[in-house]
Amino acid sequence: MEERPWVIAFEDANGKDKKLLGGKGAGLAVMTQIGLNVPPGFIITTEVCKQFNESGKKLPDGLMDMVLEQLRKVEEKTRKKFGNSTNPLLVSVRSGAAISMPGMMDTVLNLGLNDETIQGLIEQTQDIRFAYDAYRRFVQMYCSIVLGLDKKLFDEVFESTKQEMGAQTDLDLDADALKNIVVKYKEICKNETGNDFPDDPVEQLEKAIAAVFRSWETPRSITYRKEYKITSDIADGTAVNVVTMVFGNIGENSGTGVAFTRDPGTGENVFYGEFLQTAQGEDVVAGVRTPRPIAELNEVMPDIYQQLEEVRGILEKHYREIQDIEFTVERGQLYILQTRNGKMNAQAMIKTSLDLFNEGLITKEETVARLDPNQLEQLFHRRIDPKVKVDSIAKGIAASPGVASGFIVFDADEAEKQAKEFKKKVIMVREETKPDDVHGFFAAQGILTSRGGKTSHAAVVARGLGKPCVVGVESLKIDYKKKVFTTGEVTAKEGDMITIDGTRGLVMLGEFPTIEPELAPDLKQILEWADEIRSLKVEANADEPLNAKRAREFGAEGIGLCRTERMFNAPERLGIMHKMILAETLEERKKFLDQLMPMQKSDFKEILKVMEGLKVTIRLLDPPLHEFLPRMDEVIEEVYAMKAKKATAAAITEKEKLLRRLRQMTEVNPMMGQRGVRLGIMMPEIYEMQTRAIIEAATELVSEGVDVRPQIMLPNVGSDLEMRWVRERIEKLVKETIEAAGVELNYQIGTMIEVVRACLVADKIAQYAEFFSFGTNDLTQGTYSFSREDAEAKFLTKYLEEKLLVTSPFEILDKDGVVKLMSIGVELGRKTRPDLEIGICGEHGGDPASIELCHLIGLNYVSCSPYRIPIARIAAAQAEIKHPRKQ
Amino acid sequence: MEERPWVIAFEDANGKDKKLLGGKGAGLAVMTQIGLNVPPGFIITTEVCKQFNESGKKLPDGLMDMVLEQLRKVEEKTRKKFGNSTNPLLVSVRSGAAISMPGMMDTVLNLGLNDETIQGLIEQTQDIRFAYDAYRRFVQMYCSIVLGLDKKLFDEVFESTKQEMGAQTDLDLDADALKNIVVKYKEICKNETGNDFPDDPVEQLEKAIAAVFRSWETPRSITYRKEYKITSDIADGTAVNVVTMVFGNIGENSGTGVAFTRDPGTGENVFYGEFLQTAQGEDVVAGVRTPRPIAELNEVMPDIYQQLEEVRGILEKHYREIQDIEFTVERGQLYILQTRNGKMNAQAMIKTSLDLFNEGLITKEETVARLDPNQLEQLFHRRIDPKVKVDSIAKGIAASPGVASGFIVFDADEAEKQAKEFKKKVIMVREETKPDDVHGFFAAQGILTSRGGKTSHAAVVARGLGKPCVVGVESLKIDYKKKVFTTGEVTAKEGDMITIDGTRGLVMLGEFPTIEPELAPDLKQILEWADEIRSLKVEANADEPLNAKRAREFGAEGIGLCRTERMFNAPERLGIMHKMILAETLEERKKFLDQLMPMQKSDFKEILKVMEGLKVTIRLLDPPLHEFLPRMDEVIEEVYAMKAKKATAAAITEKEKLLRRLRQMTEVNPMMGQRGVRLGIMMPEIYEMQTRAIIEAATELVSEGVDVRPQIMLPNVGSDLEMRWVRERIEKLVKETIEAAGVELNYQIGTMIEVVRACLVADKIAQYAEFFSFGTNDLTQGTYSFSREDAEAKFLTKYLEEKLLVTSPFEILDKDGVVKLMSIGVELGRKTRPDLEIGICGEHGGDPASIELCHLIGLNYVSCSPYRIPIARIAAAQAEIKHPRKQ
Repeated sequence: MEERPWVIAFEDANGKDKKLLGGKGAGLAVMTQIGLNVPPGFIITTEVCKQFNESGKKLPDGLMDMVLEQLRKVEEKTRKKFGNSTNPLLVSVRSGAAISMPGMMDTVLNLGLNDETIQGLIEQTQDIRFAYDAYRRFVQMYCSIVLGLDKKLFDEVFESTKQEMGAQTDLDLDADALKNIVVKYKEICKNETGNDFPDDPVEQLEKAIAAVFRSWETPRSITYRKEYKITSDIADGTAVNVVTMVFGNIGENSGTGVAFTRDPGTGENVFYGEFLQTAQGEDVVAGVRTPRPIAELNEVMPDIYQQLEEVRGILEKHYREIQDIEFTVERGQLYILQTRNGKMNAQAMIKTSLDLFNEGLITKEETVARLDPNQLEQLFHRRIDPKVKVDSIAKGIAASPGVASGFIVFDADEAEKQAKEFKKKVIMVREETKPDDVHGFFAAQGILTSRGGKTSHAAVVARGLGKPCVVGVESLKIDYKKKVFTTGEVTAKEGDMITIDGTRGLVMLGEFPTIEPELAPDLKQILEWADEIRSLKVEANADEPLNAKRAREFGAEGIGLCRTERMFNAPERLGIMHKMILAETLEERKKFLDQLMPMQKSDFKEILKVMEGLKVTIRLLDPPLHEFLPRMDEVIEEVYAMKAKKATAAAITEKEKLLRRLRQMTEVNPMMGQRGVRLGIMMPEIYEMQTRAIIEAATELVSEGVDVRPQIMLPNVGSDLEMRWVRERIEKLVKETIEAAGVELNYQIGTMIEVVRACLVADKIAQYAEFFSFGTNDLTQGTYSFSREDAEAKFLTKYLEEKLLVTSPFEILDKDGVVKLMSIGVELGRKTRPDLEIGICGEHGGDPASIELCHLIGLNYVSCSPYRIPIARIAAAQAEIKHPRKQ
Repeated sequence: MEERPWVIAFEDANGKDKKLLGGKGAGLAVMTQIGLNVPPGFIITTEVCKQFNESGKKLPDGLMDMVLEQLRKVEEKTRKKFGNSTNPLLVSVRSGAAISMPGMMDTVLNLGLNDETIQGLIEQTQDIRFAYDAYRRFVQMYCSIVLGLDKKLFDEVFESTKQEMGAQTDLDLDADALKNIVVKYKEICKNETGNDFPDDPVEQLEKAIAAVFRSWETPRSITYRKEYKITSDIADGTAVNVVTMVFGNIGENSGTGVAFTRDPGTGENVFYGEFLQTAQGEDVVAGVRTPRPIAELNEVMPDIYQQLEEVRGILEKHYREIQDIEFTVERGQLYILQTRNGKMNAQAMIKTSLDLFNEGLITKEETVARLDPNQLEQLFHRRIDPKVKVDSIAKGIAASPGVASGFIVFDADEAEKQAKEFKKKVIMVREETKPDDVHGFFAAQGILTSRGGKTSHAAVVARGLGKPCVVGVESLKIDYKKKVFTTGEVTAKEGDMITIDGTRGLVMLGEFPTIEPELAPDLKQILEWADEIRSLKVEANADEPLNAKRAREFGAEGIGLCRTERMFNAPERLGIMHKMILAETLEERKKFLDQLMPMQKSDFKEILKVMEGLKVTIRLLDPPLHEFLPRMDEVIEEVYAMKAKKATAAAITEKEKLLRRLRQMTEVNPMMGQRGVRLGIMMPEIYEMQTRAIIEAATELVSEGVDVRPQIMLPNVGSDLEMRWVRERIEKLVKETIEAAGVELNYQIGTMIEVVRACLVADKIAQYAEFFSFGTNDLTQGTYSFSREDAEAKFLTKYLEEKLLVTSPFEILDKDGVVKLMSIGVELGRKTRPDLEIGICGEHGGDPASIELCHLIGLNYVSCSPYRIPIARIAAAQAEIKHPRKQ
């Protein structure tokens, strides 16, 4: 292993190694080396932090010798001396991890001051008040951060002194008062710790360094990293930067400021930021004084402004990226204290990307690689006009993006009634939803639930229908009887207007102006480049013509998953579906299938037509039947309720018949029961009906001159024998139907790979399948033996809290398990059929991290919801850039 | 590919290639080549059958030329001529597949007869009546088998001729009558087929060959092969044997017989069989005349008997296996027509094995390899005295072996009452059982259900308790109200005595004398050899001391799986378990855990003591909690029933509380829900209690000087993170407990590998696990996405019928899927920890075919139920013999 250095000067460090230097140190090193004016200093690397934490919070032996050696170099450069009473060197001790963790870790300023060196500071600055102000700030910071004393103790002294002196603001305290405060602060230190405040600057430095390292493992830092998923492979410890102090608060020709090299809100190529004259960084953060726009600096200090403009150009050229900088002016001298990549919103990100390309700073590939695909999502949904101020009353999980407003209703029937009869826009608010509520989804603008996660019924159905949805709003208490909900102090009742933002997970009272989504020309340009670059195709999961159309507009190259069962969710169809499933005889079942057939056929016809020239992959009926059936316990209750209400004997008998049938059909673990291809084998008439519907729809369109490419996909296949059995039967039907129509038709028959065993015997299955599509939702369930519904309800939260999972495997593909299986499946499948087309159609198909994994294992395409198509196009291109697959 | 010959003479064929020659042909070839007197002939191989079936039931071009060429050689040897009118060669055309399929396929005798050759036969035999009898037999056989005419047509002619002639038996018909019958048969042929009966012997032969090949794919043959699991890799088509006819029915010095070279019932080394004088094989089969014991042949034809004794020795020496032969004596000349390995019962198998070894015919390895381990099972359970005649009233699935008799009871409470209060032996008869019935299992001698399969609740619990059990007796109709059951014509009521045979799946009225199982000395000897040979260790699945003791007696080298939840099945504990699971607060749960702790501890102590010096692998609580809970729909009904009966408000409230809690705890797919290690993470107090109970039990025994080796096993682990999380916590507790006891204790902590993902990340898990034990029941469920309970109830039967599965993967390990995953797990686990101990503790651990797979992938041990230990020892040795692993 390469030896990782412990202490290194800004001029000597390799600015690309952020993991070692931390972000701040890396920036200071780069800026020093490209000639910007950075106060001299050095970095104690993250390697030391690691050793510090591994050895029981002890600085490693020999460290301070290295520190003092570097400090001597700084003394040479600054011509000041650390601890010297006539020309003292003061330093700041700053934390800086590979990833910025705002406000999480500690910094000590003005270090090196004591009762002797203060005299030297007075001499240097000729400003006694300034010097003592610096001194009292240092003592307070040191006591609270390094010694861990309560800040309040110091605030009380400061405030009481102000009162005694009749001071309005801090500035009204004179040098003597501040000097007095320092004395009192040191008394507190003595009282609280039993020791004198350390006057030795080297001791101060050593302890401050240790304090910064310690701050890496405070509970709040740990929580922060957990929250933002900063794992140890991203940032492993903090570095410490020891930097010569410069002061922005010594007189009028001093100041401090922060700036972006371009406008992070719009991306416009203008210098953007603010500054404060005669102030330190703290003052900007504290918000006591209002900073002025950076443009005005040109009036106050035109020379400095000019220098900053130059710095801006130099940094952008160097980093080829928008920078977010901090600077200080000390008596007319400009120092740059920090630079890092600027965070921008999606719109600005796109604009600056194109601009940087046009300025010749970055290549097409870099333009595409620069975007955060997840950040783009907000652009593809209706959103609240950013100009409008919004106060949310509750926050939950953003389950299906977009914004919707409507009157509150608390059940699906009411939703339907208000929407159909009274033409009202409604938001359906429920604790949770079930299949019986689906007519409410159709009727409502959006769905809000107090329970459930991203994969709850409400979330999945809403995403399927493209309706905004917020779930898991835990603060929401719903009283169905009174028809009100409360959240915090707020109560809202049925008929009140609310707005939900499914992109951000917010709930608001009232209605707001919104903006329609569209593919802006800038983004279109980048997407075209992404299309040139990527090797993965991008297809859509779409179950109905409108969604298919939208997917095509967003660039879908086909439909990778058309779920036939979704088509039965429409209220007028669900009833027939129920009856079909519950049929006790083949004859009865066929009767209901015959009723469903023309509906399916017309659906298929519409979708095939919309997707003219592109393939449409239609999955035959898959779901565990319980998803269509009422719950047994509820039906039992209904029977008793009917008896209590003295319903007619016929009605009761009917309900009891339903109950009996439910008892017969109930499965212990429906997810692993009679579903998918097993259903197709147990009740072949279902797949036969669907096959006929698909092929009749397709052949009719061919007769009309439409180029259609249906692909029939069998779900839940676990063996070649199942695949062969079903394929033989439906292919016979396909051929007969085509022959009867007297046309030519391109079709394929393939399978979803969503059962673990299918991956392991993919070579055999590929004999009978022309394509594979990984159903990673179910594959993840099978691999983990996690029932998704149960996992989310019962233990997933705890698993994430306890770090037993880094992310939910239902959101980002599990690389070690599920992806390993997938790659076995790919390898075996292609062994049998080298040209096997393989894709993914689980929800992971729209997740950039998962798309990268799909690219790596050699899939041909990903399929995702229409709104995620552009994201997937970008992510696929980024994957190709990172791991080139094309020749 | 090697070219497979089409037609081959007995003297030229390789008798070891049964797949090519069929069993009969291979035997004839061998016997010819070792000098026994076999009628000359040749074999048309199974290869031709394959081509026949692949080319639309057409004999391949060129075949008949080869056949005629071989026929000429036979003519030379026999000095007869096929189709010759003075000295005709007659042949039989016999089917013969690699596996014997008694009665399934067709044979034509006396082929070559026509109105001309009959004259030659008369000349040869000087027996007109015999010749016409042969002729009419041939015509009838040919018409029915080759031409497919209805046998009845011929029987009618034959019977009416007998009536006309006033004949009592066939023998009363003279030559003229028989000749007349031939004429009438030929008329039937002409009438039915429109063609004359073929007189050309070559045409006869060609068509007969085709007919035999056709018989391979008749529905009844296909059904037979499905039933007996004869797959194409075992037998792929039938061969046809063309053999010179010899006649056992020409006079007194002719005859026919069948014999075993030793007694297949006892294994004794005596010639065993029977013969008929002046008879053909047909006559023996038809049972018209009663054959005589073979010993009497010594009186009738001492010379032949002597020759047969010689043949017996030659064949046993050659095959080194007991043979089952057929012979014919034609006018004082002995011909051997067939030989095959003799089928024996388990006892005979063992005795002959040892005898063959002692006779120096086979080695130790061959002795062990010779046994069918599955056949041994009957020896390890109480069985009905084989001397007693038994009439069963119903047949079901043999779910847990052994025989039990008792009075019929129809519910668990009654079972307990009768057993406890009245000291009666009872058999619990139910449609199906549930956890609430478990006290009935304890009370009953055996369990009989009308529903369910081998893995139903009743079957699993009964096997766990070692009680005989028959399930899925579909003919059984139970009327709980009247307390009777009927099956067919039989009705039995509560209190009637019945006997169930769980080894054979039978139900009998009344009680029968039984035999206790024991390891006979012969078997003990073979088991010792097996132990010397095998490299796989054999351990037991045992949950309580009695079973553990039995396992030790049967040779278990440790306990591979001790299920702690089974210990809660005892009625007095189940209540506390219920309460513990349903507890709403941690405090409440701990209270019940504290009550369970001493019970667990004393159980562990007993088992550890019984297994002194051997390891005991104790699995912490695993099952989906629903297995302990009442069903929600039943509780709802109970609430209503209580209300209707006006139960006290307090009682109703209590029940409603239970219902509420059930609703909270209900899972959609409990098998993939909060269970196993997830339970241990969500409710750490459960595993803590169990860990303390194990370690306190162990350390107390150590203090008493007992050598104990507990192994703590975590169930349902899917990631290293889970394993580490739990291990850290329980290991701390283990260490504290050991320290408090002040003793030394050998212990290990490991995991079951039963989640698919665990196989894929086994390298990571092995960091924290000292042993792996494959839980193949759950692993199979996860790999197939089959919920076992649902699969058996809903679709497994159809899957087996439709050949979508060859065998249930819950009985024999799935080689292509589950075993592939296991071998990934083994490889990865050993990569991290080369000395990782790996075993299997699923129900497959006692199945010989699965044991072979476990051996092949390098497991260290198999663990199975006590009664299967000897079987596993044999199977493990056989695996080693077949695939040597030892140096």
